Amino acid sequence: MADESLFDFLHMEIVSHMYTEQQSSKGEMDNKDRAVCVSVLESMGFRVGQGIIERLTRDSPSFKDELDVMKFVCKDFWTKVFRRQVDNLRTNHQGTYVLQDNKFSFLTQLSSGKQYLDQAPKYLAFSCGVVRGALSNLGMDSVVTAEVSVMPSCKFQVVVQKL
Amino acid sequence: MADESLFDFLHMEIVSHMYTEQQSSKGEMDNKDRAVCVSVLESMGFRVGQGIIERLTRDSPSFKDELDVMKFVCKDFWTKVFRRQVDNLRTNHQGTYVLQDNKFSFLTQLSSGKQYLDQAPKYLAFSCGVVRGALSNLGMDSVVTAEVSVMPSCKFQVVVQKL
Repeated sequence: MADESLFDFLHMEIVSHMYTEQQSSKGEMDNKDRAVCVSVLESMGFRVGQGIIERLTRDSPSFKDELDVMKFVCKDFWTKVFRRQVDNLRTNHQGTYVLQDNKFSFLTQLSSGKQYLDQAPKYLAFSCGVVRGALSNLGMDSVVTAEVSVMPSCKFQVVVQKL
Repeated sequence: MADESLFDFLHMEIVSHMYTEQQSSKGEMDNKDRAVCVSVLESMGFRVGQGIIERLTRDSPSFKDELDVMKFVCKDFWTKVFRRQVDNLRTNHQGTYVLQDNKFSFLTQLSSGKQYLDQAPKYLAFSCGVVRGALSNLGMDSVVTAEVSVMPSCKFQVVVQKL
């Protein structure tokens, strides 16, 4: 519980630091500035995700296919990082996966009304990176995006990049 | 355990981000650049410390004096944030306190040889802020510094600012 709040507070601080810094250097933020913040947070998340999955899969058997990896991420990895399992996993069997978390832990700190809906993306960039980093270490290059329509529920879309 | 590593990885990332950013904008870092990094990390820590102590003392009785506050910080607060109690608390009874942690959790990730001793301050700025933030919320303005002579042992010095 305390470690959770330690992480939560630090995560909030970082998001706010990135945005404040970007804003104060320019006065006002345009879409490009926002993209810079998102990208920095996402790449931090990427490396954190890599680190965590590395520890988590140290003693795991190898995975038999892509879906098997995704199931591990939705269950074991999600529980470790986001404190619960993904509620719903869907796929088109062509490399696109939708992971729905009905009570996404990074959003439960924010009010669940519509008021802060436009603030949600700030708090999802890091998480998208975490997921992408984990998948990358398991051999899956992907693009991960997140979407919130009703707080604190969140849908992550993973599109695996085929080479 | 996982939440710990989540926090640990994020903390490492932030430290590295701050230093890389400062370095890349200038080429090389001088003492002033280092001071900027330390100050940013310290103030992040400050706000995190405030948040944590606020939750932690919500149901606590009030403290009878300064030493009582320090004991709470060394025991309950330290355990929550740094996962163990302070090993030794000393004071000159004039507002200076030395808190010794023989196995400081933010340093146990680093190799315990002398090799990374000069890197240690980077990883202590945030912690100093956390302690200062907690004390500040309990009504004690202070200056908090940290010193490492043998890893992963760490001495925090708290000097209470009398008005």
